[in-house]
Amino acid sequence: MNNKLLITGTVAFDEIETPSGSSGKIIGGAGTYIGVASSFFTNNLAIVSIIGEDFPEKEIKFLNERGINTDMIEKVVDGKTFFWKGKYHENMINRDTIATELNVLEKFNPVLNTEFSSSEIILLGNLHPNVQNTVIDQSTNPNRFIIMDTMNFWMDNNLNELLMVIKKVDLIIINDEEAQQLTSEKNIFNAGEKILKMGPQKVIIKKGENGSVYLDSQNKHILPAFPVLNLVDPTGAGDSYAGGIAGFLATKNELTFKEIKEAMIYGTIIASFCVEDFGIKGLRKLDTLTLNKRLKIFKSYLT
Amino acid sequence: MNNKLLITGTVAFDEIETPSGSSGKIIGGAGTYIGVASSFFTNNLAIVSIIGEDFPEKEIKFLNERGINTDMIEKVVDGKTFFWKGKYHENMINRDTIATELNVLEKFNPVLNTEFSSSEIILLGNLHPNVQNTVIDQSTNPNRFIIMDTMNFWMDNNLNELLMVIKKVDLIIINDEEAQQLTSEKNIFNAGEKILKMGPQKVIIKKGENGSVYLDSQNKHILPAFPVLNLVDPTGAGDSYAGGIAGFLATKNELTFKEIKEAMIYGTIIASFCVEDFGIKGLRKLDTLTLNKRLKIFKSYLT
Repeated sequence: MNNKLLITGTVAFDEIETPSGSSGKIIGGAGTYIGVASSFFTNNLAIVSIIGEDFPEKEIKFLNERGINTDMIEKVVDGKTFFWKGKYHENMINRDTIATELNVLEKFNPVLNTEFSSSEIILLGNLHPNVQNTVIDQSTNPNRFIIMDTMNFWMDNNLNELLMVIKKVDLIIINDEEAQQLTSEKNIFNAGEKILKMGPQKVIIKKGENGSVYLDSQNKHILPAFPVLNLVDPTGAGDSYAGGIAGFLATKNELTFKEIKEAMIYGTIIASFCVEDFGIKGLRKLDTLTLNKRLKIFKSYLT
Repeated sequence: MNNKLLITGTVAFDEIETPSGSSGKIIGGAGTYIGVASSFFTNNLAIVSIIGEDFPEKEIKFLNERGINTDMIEKVVDGKTFFWKGKYHENMINRDTIATELNVLEKFNPVLNTEFSSSEIILLGNLHPNVQNTVIDQSTNPNRFIIMDTMNFWMDNNLNELLMVIKKVDLIIINDEEAQQLTSEKNIFNAGEKILKMGPQKVIIKKGENGSVYLDSQNKHILPAFPVLNLVDPTGAGDSYAGGIAGFLATKNELTFKEIKEAMIYGTIIASFCVEDFGIKGLRKLDTLTLNKRLKIFKSYLT
């Protein structure tokens, strides 16, 4: 069986400070959040990433136990894992980066072997556009569905490369401020329409605690967020939202408007659990029963 | 035929400054916004209010032309109409009050004659809780449905009187910050649950451009807002939202969860037109065809 969902993104160390506490050094990274979130829905998935020798073997084992193939997480001998330290403001939305140590990430040049280059769904987590592009170029499946996430950093520093990647993807997931920055449009659907013209057939714009919207050339959709009970740490919310979407889509044969709308609900709920504890703790302790219960409650809020 | 919908609220002069311009002195007031918004759905409604001799007769005529009974808008000879001047911050959400001249509002003591005291739906617009209470006390219809709107000013200054009114109403409409202030609960549904315990059977919490939520003892509902194309002036958004709800409910025989959910959609869309121009201009120029078109589009976004 071919690999269904291929995720590229950082597998890293994070240290997070919020007004209510500090996480200490914990595992994080877009690849980790996306992978763990996806793994609630599919066990046919792999992460392509790079780590240093300091990355705990037991955390790789944890990913494996969740059904995630880690064969393409390259471990660099004598290398140090990517590290990010951030501090959230009182509003728990804005944050300052306190430290970024790229370490092994500086040399990250993903090489996919045949088993993975034919993946049906590829989720490009937030990374340098050139790295995202390398993964796209190695994809051999003519029916692949490519999802990308990005952030304002690349718009500020590597806009041309970023636009080249955006051109090639099927679905872009981006937050509202970034969509505004990319398009100079304030209205969320106008911004989305402009992004559609840049290449993707489908656009999701995230609004954090205020939900997300979807659009393609024919359809528009608005989904509120789940009102989280206790916001502890927003880190990974966007990644787990994207991971939930990709994981859900990996269980479907068709990826039409109907499936995407349903996937957004799954992404929203996975993200709601993520932010209720530090780092991936919220997802680590989540079980399917609890997940399904909240999914059902959330759907009842919408109809 | 008895009067169906009774609205109490200010009929006033406003002057509004936003980062993009100034309105000059225009007509406004919660009663005006609510009345005009409601009048898109019912023509069996009346406003109870007070104005000065300076209030233009043609504006009263405009209300009448929209089907609004103004017999109980008392005109005080030699009196001056209530005036409010406000200035919006860059974010178009927060605002500073530049001037408040109560004028005739100081002596506002609404007296309902029989035709109106038997109204089926009573909407108490934002006013001193004692005035709201006076209207409730005069209501003679045992099956009346009372809706109230309020604001943080009364929580700061007249909390006990406010709580007495809240106890007596069927539906309270309140914004998220005010709900938090009233209950010390951050989660919107937890705040709503606490408000339910204060008396009302139904609670709507507004989140401005991020929609609104509803709850009663059995049901919860989340509705996003319509993504406004061009936000010009947020004044009256909350009032026209409440007016749209009350006006829609006035066309129904039952006021169950189903009707309230539908009413929230109507309130949302009326409010979306309101904020697209200064003061009531956005509603003044709105026609039913345009309204119904947006209602249909909005519903398509939700399913």
